[in-house]
Amino acid sequence: MAEERELKVRALLDTVRAEGRTALTAPEGKVIADAYGIAVPGEELATDADQAVAAAARFGGPVVLKIVSPDILHKTDAGGVIVGVDGEAAVREAYQRIVDNAHAYAADARITGIQVQELLPTGPDTQEVIVGSVTDPTFGKVVAFGLGGVLVEVLKDITFRLAPVSVDESLDMLDSIKAAEVLRGVRGAKGVDREALAEQIRRVSQLVTDFPEIAEVDLNPVIATPKGALAADIRVILAEGEQKQRRKYSREEMLTSMRRLMQPSSITVIGASNEQGKIGNSVMRNLIDGGFTGEIHPVNPKSDDILGRKAYKSVTDVPGDVDVAIFAIPAKFVASALEEVGRKGIPNAVLIPSGFAETGEQELQDEIVAIAERYGTRLLGPNIYGYYSTWQNLCATFCTPYDVKGGVALTSQSGGIGMAILGFARTTKTGVSAIVGLGNKSDLDEDDLLTWFGEDPNTDCIAMHLEDLKDGRAFVEAARETVPKKPVVVLKAGRTAAGAKAAGSHTGALAGDDAVYDDILKQAGVIRAPGLNDMLEYARALPVLPTPKGDNIVIITGAGGSGVLLSDAVMDNGLELMEIPADLDAAFRKFIPPFGAAGNPVDITGGEPPSTYEATIRLGLEDPRIHSLVLGYWHTIVTPPMVFAEVTARVVQEFRERGIEKPVVASLAGDVEVEEACQYLFDRGVVAYPYTTEKPVAVLGAKYKWARAAGKLGGGR
Amino acid sequence: MAEERELKVRALLDTVRAEGRTALTAPEGKVIADAYGIAVPGEELATDADQAVAAAARFGGPVVLKIVSPDILHKTDAGGVIVGVDGEAAVREAYQRIVDNAHAYAADARITGIQVQELLPTGPDTQEVIVGSVTDPTFGKVVAFGLGGVLVEVLKDITFRLAPVSVDESLDMLDSIKAAEVLRGVRGAKGVDREALAEQIRRVSQLVTDFPEIAEVDLNPVIATPKGALAADIRVILAEGEQKQRRKYSREEMLTSMRRLMQPSSITVIGASNEQGKIGNSVMRNLIDGGFTGEIHPVNPKSDDILGRKAYKSVTDVPGDVDVAIFAIPAKFVASALEEVGRKGIPNAVLIPSGFAETGEQELQDEIVAIAERYGTRLLGPNIYGYYSTWQNLCATFCTPYDVKGGVALTSQSGGIGMAILGFARTTKTGVSAIVGLGNKSDLDEDDLLTWFGEDPNTDCIAMHLEDLKDGRAFVEAARETVPKKPVVVLKAGRTAAGAKAAGSHTGALAGDDAVYDDILKQAGVIRAPGLNDMLEYARALPVLPTPKGDNIVIITGAGGSGVLLSDAVMDNGLELMEIPADLDAAFRKFIPPFGAAGNPVDITGGEPPSTYEATIRLGLEDPRIHSLVLGYWHTIVTPPMVFAEVTARVVQEFRERGIEKPVVASLAGDVEVEEACQYLFDRGVVAYPYTTEKPVAVLGAKYKWARAAGKLGGGR
Repeated sequence: MAEERELKVRALLDTVRAEGRTALTAPEGKVIADAYGIAVPGEELATDADQAVAAAARFGGPVVLKIVSPDILHKTDAGGVIVGVDGEAAVREAYQRIVDNAHAYAADARITGIQVQELLPTGPDTQEVIVGSVTDPTFGKVVAFGLGGVLVEVLKDITFRLAPVSVDESLDMLDSIKAAEVLRGVRGAKGVDREALAEQIRRVSQLVTDFPEIAEVDLNPVIATPKGALAADIRVILAEGEQKQRRKYSREEMLTSMRRLMQPSSITVIGASNEQGKIGNSVMRNLIDGGFTGEIHPVNPKSDDILGRKAYKSVTDVPGDVDVAIFAIPAKFVASALEEVGRKGIPNAVLIPSGFAETGEQELQDEIVAIAERYGTRLLGPNIYGYYSTWQNLCATFCTPYDVKGGVALTSQSGGIGMAILGFARTTKTGVSAIVGLGNKSDLDEDDLLTWFGEDPNTDCIAMHLEDLKDGRAFVEAARETVPKKPVVVLKAGRTAAGAKAAGSHTGALAGDDAVYDDILKQAGVIRAPGLNDMLEYARALPVLPTPKGDNIVIITGAGGSGVLLSDAVMDNGLELMEIPADLDAAFRKFIPPFGAAGNPVDITGGEPPSTYEATIRLGLEDPRIHSLVLGYWHTIVTPPMVFAEVTARVVQEFRERGIEKPVVASLAGDVEVEEACQYLFDRGVVAYPYTTEKPVAVLGAKYKWARAAGKLGGGR
Repeated sequence: MAEERELKVRALLDTVRAEGRTALTAPEGKVIADAYGIAVPGEELATDADQAVAAAARFGGPVVLKIVSPDILHKTDAGGVIVGVDGEAAVREAYQRIVDNAHAYAADARITGIQVQELLPTGPDTQEVIVGSVTDPTFGKVVAFGLGGVLVEVLKDITFRLAPVSVDESLDMLDSIKAAEVLRGVRGAKGVDREALAEQIRRVSQLVTDFPEIAEVDLNPVIATPKGALAADIRVILAEGEQKQRRKYSREEMLTSMRRLMQPSSITVIGASNEQGKIGNSVMRNLIDGGFTGEIHPVNPKSDDILGRKAYKSVTDVPGDVDVAIFAIPAKFVASALEEVGRKGIPNAVLIPSGFAETGEQELQDEIVAIAERYGTRLLGPNIYGYYSTWQNLCATFCTPYDVKGGVALTSQSGGIGMAILGFARTTKTGVSAIVGLGNKSDLDEDDLLTWFGEDPNTDCIAMHLEDLKDGRAFVEAARETVPKKPVVVLKAGRTAAGAKAAGSHTGALAGDDAVYDDILKQAGVIRAPGLNDMLEYARALPVLPTPKGDNIVIITGAGGSGVLLSDAVMDNGLELMEIPADLDAAFRKFIPPFGAAGNPVDITGGEPPSTYEATIRLGLEDPRIHSLVLGYWHTIVTPPMVFAEVTARVVQEFRERGIEKPVVASLAGDVEVEEACQYLFDRGVVAYPYTTEKPVAVLGAKYKWARAAGKLGGGR
């Protein structure tokens, strides 16, 4: 069946192509709609009144009757159209009337028959919507859904998904527009047939998946009613030209070369130098000072010894198997050196030099890509600071070594952002597994790294700064593979028109439509960071926080004012304040002053001793109905910051040893001593920030976004 | 004329009241509409065909004719209604037909006449909108405007202003809804008559201003067309009950007592103590240690000497005029001590103790308010940490002294937030003029403080954390007075449903409708901080930044990646990247490498020496067409962080000395040395942040918001 319809559409599209057209006619559109079961108003040609009656009966509602005659051009003038004909008698009568009218209009007109068309529903329970598909430059085939009409056009209330979509994903699209409520029926109107509508979306998504040459499909409008969804019009446009294919590597090939890149035994530095200030010198020193214990082989045609290591004239002279060749030579020498690297069978070339596509030297870049593809050598860069693999004590950069090992892998498309990552990580003592510069992404890009970090046991969380995705579909695939195991954070730069323009002149990034990025990254379960600092904070905190087991969040606060702001933050992040059951409320009340407020936030009031903080936090961790704690601390003489920090860390640790792990985040309001207290807490698994009620909850929100995407919250939302 | 209409409406409302009703009937609504010139469909009673023709001619379009007869209840059944009658002949004919029909229906029916009603316009150029007014618990009379229809109801696209509004403010309302474009005409439809629509809003706002007993007015829908705006229906509801009035102080009285509070010569501490850990001890020590040079008089019935100062049994024994009495005694003793304070004529009582309304002791609070009102003593608090007036070296709190004098005055409703203010200010070296706790706001509140800080020459910027406004209208008045002189930042806690609920149980704050707050604070020119940390950053940075003279912002960046993110941030904050004219572009190009990007951002690329930063920043400051600079720094060996900071600070200083002051903000991407560089820059008037592209631009955005509200940007937006 599926095969038959594909043959039918294939034949049709081939004909259209053969005629040199890209736009399909309305009847051609109908053929495609019928083949894919995309509901459009039924229409049949009747050659006698009985057939017309039968057709109308099949449509089951009022119909339009129209004369079909090669001799009658202006159907209406000829009395050849009757609208809203309902019931057998009426159809029979209308059929005859049209035939009579036609003969009266032009006595010798040849009458092919009468077309019987299903009438589009109208009325208060109908809703105009739009279903479509476009070919996105980043993500390829994408389906879109939105309400129709001028208001929604102005308000741009539309949602996107990667095609193909399942019925469940389509149903989720119906709920993803801002005006979703309208589809469920408001002001007494009935809701529309959600399944029928979702089915329309699914079928369009299947169509464009089966026929990649279809650039655009537009069902506009689709008339949705409580009983169905009919596309009043279907417009299909074919693509022009073909896209060139890049060499593809299998998942196994990808992982093999990535493993050798991130866990190398032997590294060679092409352009290693004894001269301070040269990149080839910085890289060598960083490899050595960073404590890398594998082999390090400098290559320099003019020296025999670099920083006390034997240097080779050429990479081909380097003994044994080499995993990574780091290029610290000017752009113009890269191609010939890369040939040698390829010949030696080195699987990874790390191209630090700039002077390629980013400065307009696209040809030079194409040349090295061609060489690499020939040998199967993977390229990182060019135009990068290098990369860190901390668990290998590997600092293959011209920056400075970084030694706080931990669970987050960070990547950046831009070198400046890479430096911000390094500084932030160092000042906050963020535990890092890797930092990787991607630069021009001539070959290796986010999907390769994601695939690797997804498997890397040292990595618990991945955070990526990017200006574009070379292959959005491969990224989504890698993200879908990774997200069930660990959170993926993305900072997409160039979100706005001005940012996209800047990205274009910076890395030549094709920023793409941000609404599409937003919906599809969400669909892939990726946490999108709104800004650079948010990405860095998420990266620091997500590996520290345990995964929540449910949606019930309780705020325990000494500062009522913080409680209010923390509640706002909980709502802002789409989280849920637990409705405290009566017994739990009573249990909290036992610990707090009579004028404190139980409920949620639990306001223990500012004058309380450490024991009150301890008792309430203990209760929050103990009760299995509570899934996460948000703490608001108020600096007082009775409970100074470090006392609060010690109590909290101790209790959290005690429960952890008992196997009870819940996310605990804290906002500390107080004098400067709270800063030390926050670092103390952070080091002990409590995500704590001074002078802000927003950050701790934003981080918790990010963790929940991941937990939901990874299916960790049971039924959840 | 205005008086006549007021008499008319007054008489009508009195009648409605006398009848014990609160809802007006439709004809009563029409009387009010007519009195205030609120356009509703015209209707006139015609007693013959000539009158009907004349009435229809006055309305100038199709009309509805309706029988008016005490004997005909069901007009339609009697053939007594004809819709869409257009032109003299048709009116004449319809008139006669209705009369005939009526006689046919009931031969002896008495016919009062025929009502001629203007027909509401329909068609593609008409737009349903809603105009209304409600009585907001915080702001009183408020007008609302939104599009009509079910979609907009779901999307809550509505805007509010304090009544009364001018026509200009009404026009601004039309542009403030998300779907504003629809009113200007989209998809080929004509735009509506904006002036007529604005006039409807203005008139409603005048009506509710003139008659405060009108609780609600609803014109729903108003049919707006290219030629006018007609309210299809007007609904008027009267308020029940009266509000109790508080004692009012004139602006002069307010300023006099505030001056004595903030610049006191003599202070008494009631409950001063020698015992460490007591609040009365902390306050005494802070006054002394803070370096306050005025008189400090401890009051304690049990001591003769407190911290080396003579103590008095009662405040009435304290010699001379006293400006401020600080209460450090339990709540239950406050009333009697306040009597003495009142009798002594002390103008300010600072009530640190808790145990009043916030713990349910509303009566106790009412009692002290009554005492204070009797004597004209102003109350700060109760339930506060006290206050700082740094230029007086005054630390009247139980916290710790703060000594970085500067331009920002901060207030907080909550003690916890006050402590966060203190800690943040200290760690960032924020220059502060005052920090004031407001607590329960039994008397003094934000409008009093705003009025004072508006006049205070030491204060350049005011930042307020609040959970509610006791009198939103007085606040707006004070804000309107202050904003032209200095920026006012507000953090409104309890924005969300959960936050509002928490505020209710914390300070009993009536959080109010956040959409109303948002629109009205904007209308008053107040900068709204989205969160606590934002408020603190704005407070730190706004006094440091000069006022921009125009909208042209230029980004100069060493890190292309930062340039992209900074561009996003510029858009996010509603700012404008300057379109660089050709001559300026050429001028920038002279300084940057050929592969750098001019345009905006100006991307000088990462490898550049300090001289390139210097030359481009110099050009940015020199060229009068550029109004603000956003710098993106990238840490390299060639230009280390402190070198960049020194160059930038030196150039900015040099221009400042030449009288050229422009806002310069910077994002520093690099290793931890950038933190020191940021502090160095901040101290020298360049607002700089490490590891974030968002904050510097957000602060610049806040400055622009203020500059626009204060009318500093010329034509501007």
